[in-house]
Amino acid sequence: MLKYSIILLILLLFFFSCSRQEQPADLRPVENPVLVIHGGAGVILRSEMSAGKEQAYTEKLQEALQTGYALLLEDCSSLDAVQAAINIMEDSPLFNAGKGAVFAANGKNEMDAAIMDGKTLRAGAVAAVQHIKNPINLARLVMEKTPHVLLCGQGAEEFARQQGMPLMPEEYFFTEHRWQQFLKAKEQDTIPEDTTSGKKFGTVGALALDKAGNLAAGTSTGGLTYKKSGRIGDTPLIGAGTYADNQTCAVSATGQGEYFMRGVVAYDIAAMIEYRGLSLEAAVQEAIKKLSAAGGTGGVIALDRKGHMAMTFNTAGMYRGYIRDNTPVVMLYKE
Amino acid sequence: MLKYSIILLILLLFFFSCSRQEQPADLRPVENPVLVIHGGAGVILRSEMSAGKEQAYTEKLQEALQTGYALLLEDCSSLDAVQAAINIMEDSPLFNAGKGAVFAANGKNEMDAAIMDGKTLRAGAVAAVQHIKNPINLARLVMEKTPHVLLCGQGAEEFARQQGMPLMPEEYFFTEHRWQQFLKAKEQDTIPEDTTSGKKFGTVGALALDKAGNLAAGTSTGGLTYKKSGRIGDTPLIGAGTYADNQTCAVSATGQGEYFMRGVVAYDIAAMIEYRGLSLEAAVQEAIKKLSAAGGTGGVIALDRKGHMAMTFNTAGMYRGYIRDNTPVVMLYKE
Repeated sequence: MLKYSIILLILLLFFFSCSRQEQPADLRPVENPVLVIHGGAGVILRSEMSAGKEQAYTEKLQEALQTGYALLLEDCSSLDAVQAAINIMEDSPLFNAGKGAVFAANGKNEMDAAIMDGKTLRAGAVAAVQHIKNPINLARLVMEKTPHVLLCGQGAEEFARQQGMPLMPEEYFFTEHRWQQFLKAKEQDTIPEDTTSGKKFGTVGALALDKAGNLAAGTSTGGLTYKKSGRIGDTPLIGAGTYADNQTCAVSATGQGEYFMRGVVAYDIAAMIEYRGLSLEAAVQEAIKKLSAAGGTGGVIALDRKGHMAMTFNTAGMYRGYIRDNTPVVMLYKE
Repeated sequence: MLKYSIILLILLLFFFSCSRQEQPADLRPVENPVLVIHGGAGVILRSEMSAGKEQAYTEKLQEALQTGYALLLEDCSSLDAVQAAINIMEDSPLFNAGKGAVFAANGKNEMDAAIMDGKTLRAGAVAAVQHIKNPINLARLVMEKTPHVLLCGQGAEEFARQQGMPLMPEEYFFTEHRWQQFLKAKEQDTIPEDTTSGKKFGTVGALALDKAGNLAAGTSTGGLTYKKSGRIGDTPLIGAGTYADNQTCAVSATGQGEYFMRGVVAYDIAAMIEYRGLSLEAAVQEAIKKLSAAGGTGGVIALDRKGHMAMTFNTAGMYRGYIRDNTPVVMLYKE
């Protein structure tokens, strides 16, 4: 009961704080806004999931969907919805983003995030930040308050401080589960492969289509357990792990970042739609096929202005869901 | 006389140290290897260039071309040639890369670089490093010695130390010319626009096609004067400022990085060749047209496996050149 009151309160706060946007006459109004999210791909098997864990993930994904969707219904922008949905997952220790982020080889949490506006192609991103509660919020400030797209490390945190964003102590991000994963990786002196059961990437992402017909994409992550300090993955790189363009699609990726970087996967999906005339579904299938051929694993979610969506991966499962007419749909496994 | 002896010595050292590569049977041997370089685009006007300055730039670009080309003639890889050509420009205070890099808002040099192998699509990059004499060399080590593509800041420098690369004192990178630019920008509290005369971006880049028919691309930069500390531009981002794929082309960009990041310009050129069937020249023209339409300025060099090349920009000039049959060709202005 208390939980639902808190959610309601958060929703009400968002309703009165988000930036309302006008609908330009040249944009076809969209009947149903859409929100699509993921919470990471990897070895997610029904046989190894406890009922309690399954319920916890399902409820948190539903909460993220409902929070973002409520904003869309209130005429807030797709950027606001993406940010709000990602905040819910960043604040949950279930996902590898914000609280619950994995540990780099130096035993620190180093987080990356990006957000992109499909209407203007403006984008903001941060990389290797250690004390930011919601990296996606700092990414949005980079987009809106600087002439830059990507800030990393201490420079990004100095900018956060200048913007009045509180820096969190390292303890805030700590979870015993992630620490044990780190200790095991450290003992073996290697980044855990995703082929062993129980491993998953856990990056979170969201895509939204708002009533004005504008797309947005966002992604937030703690990266890879035992990655080298300073390693930047695909998440904060526009065109690799995050991309949005009203003319083609919005994309958010999760998986082995280096494969998405070398393949420029998010922009490649947009390019196959624009230049080859592929459907969203076909372009996403082709991108995952190329990813597999290159030896990479992971998944993407994609959404276009007509509300077409795809949630495709070459792993055993991907935490994912969407909402387009009030009822959130959440899936965890392949089938 | 001493100068030419030193160059000769450097060339000899490269000949005996670079990694020779075998020529796979499935690759058409290339008669003439090709090397294309740039030293930055911007307001470069003949009317404002002194004879001495023109000669200094011309000679340094020639030296970079001859150094890389000598390696290509000796069957070294395109990666080796790209790296060697960029090293010459990084070590020269004439360019905004390595020694002579511009100063960020915190008064420090923060440098970015990337290298990519068109044969394997492997890539390595570093961002916001402050003490690395040749950032392109560290980028190559990231590619060859880590499972990652991009390392930033102190983590990247820690990796350099582990690899036995000496860290340089900040004074090494200092040039009075760049410091004065910084002081002026600081006084005005703004990043200088490229519309005023004398301003140029000064990023350096190189593309090579070796005898085995393999492409490589590399780019190295100090970024923008008075940029926020931690700002990462397009240079170290695969698909934005640097890209290479034997199947399409190699690209290196220079200009207002944020526009190249949002437009995913380097990969967009490759995508237009692959998906739209455009020629290299047409794809590059289209990319610069899109850059101009978005309000961005800068230029790119591009090279494909058949030796087609393009050196295109929407600024008043771009330091650039190529070599394909022993004689380096260098150009500075538009006409």
